[in-house]
Amino acid sequence: MKHFITTADFDQQTLQQMLDLANQFKQGKSSDILKNKSVALLFFNPSLRTRTTFEIGTWQLGGHAIVLEPGKSAWPLEFELGNKMDATAEEHVIEAAKVLSRFCDLICIRAFPKFENWEYDRQDKIIQSFAQYATVPVINMETITHPCQELAHMQMIQEKLGTPKKKKYLLTWTYHPKPLNTAVANSSLLISTKFGMDVTLLCPTEEYLLDERYLNIAKENVAQYGGSFQVTHDIKQAYQDADVVYAKSWGALPYFGHWEPEKQIRDRYQHFIVDEEKMGLTNNAIFSHCLPLRRNIKATDGVMDADYCAAIDEAENRLHAQKGMMQYLLENQ
Amino acid sequence: MKHFITTADFDQQTLQQMLDLANQFKQGKSSDILKNKSVALLFFNPSLRTRTTFEIGTWQLGGHAIVLEPGKSAWPLEFELGNKMDATAEEHVIEAAKVLSRFCDLICIRAFPKFENWEYDRQDKIIQSFAQYATVPVINMETITHPCQELAHMQMIQEKLGTPKKKKYLLTWTYHPKPLNTAVANSSLLISTKFGMDVTLLCPTEEYLLDERYLNIAKENVAQYGGSFQVTHDIKQAYQDADVVYAKSWGALPYFGHWEPEKQIRDRYQHFIVDEEKMGLTNNAIFSHCLPLRRNIKATDGVMDADYCAAIDEAENRLHAQKGMMQYLLENQ
Amino acid sequence: MKHFITTADFDQQTLQQMLDLANQFKQGKSSDILKNKSVALLFFNPSLRTRTTFEIGTWQLGGHAIVLEPGKSAWPLEFELGNKMDATAEEHVIEAAKVLSRFCDLICIRAFPKFENWEYDRQDKIIQSFAQYATVPVINMETITHPCQELAHMQMIQEKLGTPKKKKYLLTWTYHPKPLNTAVANSSLLISTKFGMDVTLLCPTEEYLLDERYLNIAKENVAQYGGSFQVTHDIKQAYQDADVVYAKSWGALPYFGHWEPEKQIRDRYQHFIVDEEKMGLTNNAIFSHCLPLRRNIKATDGVMDADYCAAIDEAENRLHAQKGMMQYLLENQ
Repeated sequence: MKHFITTADFDQQTLQQMLDLANQFKQGKSSDILKNKSVALLFFNPSLRTRTTFEIGTWQLGGHAIVLEPGKSAWPLEFELGNKMDATAEEHVIEAAKVLSRFCDLICIRAFPKFENWEYDRQDKIIQSFAQYATVPVINMETITHPCQELAHMQMIQEKLGTPKKKKYLLTWTYHPKPLNTAVANSSLLISTKFGMDVTLLCPTEEYLLDERYLNIAKENVAQYGGSFQVTHDIKQAYQDADVVYAKSWGALPYFGHWEPEKQIRDRYQHFIVDEEKMGLTNNAIFSHCLPLRRNIKATDGVMDADYCAAIDEAENRLHAQKGMMQYLLENQ
Repeated sequence: MKHFITTADFDQQTLQQMLDLANQFKQGKSSDILKNKSVALLFFNPSLRTRTTFEIGTWQLGGHAIVLEPGKSAWPLEFELGNKMDATAEEHVIEAAKVLSRFCDLICIRAFPKFENWEYDRQDKIIQSFAQYATVPVINMETITHPCQELAHMQMIQEKLGTPKKKKYLLTWTYHPKPLNTAVANSSLLISTKFGMDVTLLCPTEEYLLDERYLNIAKENVAQYGGSFQVTHDIKQAYQDADVVYAKSWGALPYFGHWEPEKQIRDRYQHFIVDEEKMGLTNNAIFSHCLPLRRNIKATDGVMDADYCAAIDEAENRLHAQKGMMQYLLENQ
Repeated sequence: MKHFITTADFDQQTLQQMLDLANQFKQGKSSDILKNKSVALLFFNPSLRTRTTFEIGTWQLGGHAIVLEPGKSAWPLEFELGNKMDATAEEHVIEAAKVLSRFCDLICIRAFPKFENWEYDRQDKIIQSFAQYATVPVINMETITHPCQELAHMQMIQEKLGTPKKKKYLLTWTYHPKPLNTAVANSSLLISTKFGMDVTLLCPTEEYLLDERYLNIAKENVAQYGGSFQVTHDIKQAYQDADVVYAKSWGALPYFGHWEPEKQIRDRYQHFIVDEEKMGLTNNAIFSHCLPLRRNIKATDGVMDADYCAAIDEAENRLHAQKGMMQYLLENQ
């Protein structure tokens, strides 16, 4: 069974095939690959773009999407093996995954970390469990990475810059009042290095480095696909000559679950906001963000409203990129 | 961009075109004007009729509706310009409106007042912001007016009474344990005066008058379309010879946000309930209400179960009227 | 108007017609009996299988399903007649049922007991009210019985065992930390006796007997369709030579609404769990459960993961059986 859980499972060429399909869909290509098929969309967390694009994308491909919210409209689920289910979960993922596989042809999961214990959250247990027990392909709608966002992001970069290879790509940490998921930041490194870009990760301190798993994949991608990867805490150096600036906030992993002391550190770095002055240091870079974005916290109104802001274009690509990915996945099982 | 935010933006003839289409749909007309199109339904408040009719109406016109609940299944939104988004909102309406416009061909909004400050709520900021930033038509599913209800209401009146011009129309305030939205009351005045009816607004005291904006539009409609408009606090005079009785409860605007003292006043007027005795004063009037309605609070069981109660017929027309309105809107951009 | 509220309203032959249609759908039969029709799904309680299968089943039959959650996304409803609606309900079932009948061609209801007063809950007032005021067929998605589960269960039994007549059928009570609904247990007795099986109800004490209404129907079914029905509290005797073991937990009716003392009794019977040792006493029985199921509380991992566990097959049949039932219902009004 071929799932779409992380882009690390696919080489550049295969991802490019999905992107080529995405571009064809954007140009008006029609497909009924989901005719008579249905798609389960399981949301453990809120969503605007993801829900809208998966529902519409499924419908445009001829299928029908079902939205389920475990713990709200649907039963709370258990993910541990072998324990006595005497707490709040009414159903085990083994049954949920097997049953949904009887009704649906794809199972899509959004499950953010619980933000208590990174050693636990980094196992990505919810989607991994569904992938283990489902008998249909499982798709990641954001867990500890966000591969659908990666495709939409790379489609946008190729639209704006042509070939991404050796272009200067900056992923900058930004402030946010709450400690957020590292998923999109991890994904940013995965996809930019996979396409041979010269990648800089800008974060306030060593404490804001991403999980070593993703840093290592980034280094492996550099070895395989060219490009480069560096980490810096120097804002000016980071923005200098950048072609792409991608922003994301996240909580520091060493303080995971101990967010009080982390907040004291985080609060010192509100100046990491993306503003017009910083953008002025770049090589007329495009700016983007996965959205939702808090204005004047992560980026200023001036940046968000500038012509170089590509966040809306990237968001639109979610629809096309996910259709391309589903088309590929169903044609290549 | 032509939106459908208030019927005040359309003349009688144009609204009649929508109603004619509504009647054709009720008679079995089919249309695929929404083929390959999708419609975003944003609910900031609960709904039964609105959600059901927009979902089914969209589907009957060949399209696909997406239901989004900001603050619940979707991200909480910010509507102020230029501020630092450090509170609870994760996304600005600028991005939400622009992004949804990339995915959907119509954006429909239900956003009731917050009931704290009428000077704020009367700006109707949520739907006005969506209309400002969206690049597709925006439709009002009830904010501070309820124009879809107006169409369904007028379609019902024309079905029951023929030409509405110079028919006697009573909008009566009724009691309700909670201070409710003035939207349907405002809409009642807008649509009845727009079609040249002789309109009476019955409310307990001057404090229960509606916002002057809508009183003024009612007077302008009288000047343009004939008919008349009067306010009274005299129940018997109001019901005398009425052809249509429409009921609605609302909170007194001068006490907006100070609902404790308002409730003490409101509680004195529970006898404004629509009952069979009052209906006996009319010219065999039809009775209607937008629903939901608390029985034996706003109207008695006897009135609700009478043959002259047209509330269910009016509710049915929501489906047809909204299809007529969407058909008109998409054909006339 | 022919509703589908309880299988007690249908004889064995009619239910078999629905099952035959279900089998045809499972074999690939297509139907557009719901073309241009819509189906209201009202959920007063959570759901995974029911929601998914009714949404997909409706779509596969050419129709469109609307999901409504009264008290959450839709208005809270009142079910008593004649009272002054001054509490929390904003709308009466009379209007809700009549209005939905104008928009939809079927109304499906999930409404569990309130667990406070069995004399009240056993009236099944929510679905009975909808059936009284709706002008379209009403379908039970689980209230105090679960007839859709019955069809899926019997379809599975016929698939695994052939003719069910005179096969030994065990319904065993199991432990659960919370007092659960008797609906599926009631349904288990209704359907197994309706098809002439030799039925044993195993429960810890007389206090865990089901409502006499369903015990009486079981006895009437025995008289009409052959088979037999006995109650026992002896685990070994109950499992001996069984062909089917069906498990369900429920709260003791004599303690309904007084769940503290009931829990003290219930906690003594955790050994009613279905395990491999008990299954070893049977005639190579199949095991099933309606799901959701708490593993290692109601049944062990060993039982759930065994080849003889048919719970997933039964769940799959929900889709086919409900399509068969809707096809029958719409063809036979």
